[in-house]
Amino acid sequence: MNGIETILSRKSVREFSDRDISNEDIKTILTAGMSGPAALNMRSFEFIITQKPSILEKISEANGPYSGALKKAKLGILVCGDIDKGYLGKDGYWVIDCAIAAQNLILAANALGIGSVWLGTYPEKAKYSALQKLFSLKSNVIPFATLAFGYPLDSTREIRDLYEVEKVHIDKW
Amino acid sequence: MNGIETILSRKSVREFSDRDISNEDIKTILTAGMSGPAALNMRSFEFIITQKPSILEKISEANGPYSGALKKAKLGILVCGDIDKGYLGKDGYWVIDCAIAAQNLILAANALGIGSVWLGTYPEKAKYSALQKLFSLKSNVIPFATLAFGYPLDSTREIRDLYEVEKVHIDKW
Repeated sequence: MNGIETILSRKSVREFSDRDISNEDIKTILTAGMSGPAALNMRSFEFIITQKPSILEKISEANGPYSGALKKAKLGILVCGDIDKGYLGKDGYWVIDCAIAAQNLILAANALGIGSVWLGTYPEKAKYSALQKLFSLKSNVIPFATLAFGYPLDSTREIRDLYEVEKVHIDKW
Repeated sequence: MNGIETILSRKSVREFSDRDISNEDIKTILTAGMSGPAALNMRSFEFIITQKPSILEKISEANGPYSGALKKAKLGILVCGDIDKGYLGKDGYWVIDCAIAAQNLILAANALGIGSVWLGTYPEKAKYSALQKLFSLKSNVIPFATLAFGYPLDSTREIRDLYEVEKVHIDKW
């Protein structure tokens, strides 16, 4: 599957098989997560990862409604931002560094045939505060996105065309 | 080039050749930009695109220092967020929708052998206000990221390993 197909065939996957994800694939996914651009290359992203069902369940509960996919996932990655490390600090680029990292994680998973769903966390304070408490994080470390991974029960993939001409403004708005 | 290689070989490119980017490739890049997940699928991203040197120069000037690569680019894409369309509005997920879109744009370009550099815009008010003014945007449309594209003068690509073990926290911080 080439790069374009990897991007266009990504979809949210919420039902996972029992098959474990190999350590090699986890390393590849994380390497991809660290390969995006970051503002002034300050790389404010951090990753809490787990394959343990008990911890996946706790993350799911902390992240609130619609986070059930994590309970059936084989891997959970909580992307966090260290606001002390990001360009322009608390109100600066850390959110963007983390979003790029998270998108790379799910695209790399898709390239490997692994499904994922991105469960929103930041900027919802109830969610990121609960996760901050769960992992006893210092105040400079903010949980940003909660990602669930596993081999999809339905492994069919299709190249989707989500282009909308109304969103493209040529030379002017 | 497969999906993993596409992600790991991405780098910022600031020097472009004279070769134009085809309309077909521009369409593919934009389709990729619209293929990421978006919070509640609300797809708050919008794209202003130009191949005109005079407009590229104006965008470069509005986006301030370090935006010179745009002046030599063959394509500029200004990713904007419509805060009225994004989940949770002004302080909600639109920034994340746009960051995912922008990362997909540059990865798709890399998959096609096209180089790019992501020039930071939001959350720097001086930059996004100047761009908002340049394109006479309504207050709900916020310029988010300024991307310059072109065929690289140096077309060598390498798979980079930017993995940092210190950024991976297993089961706990």
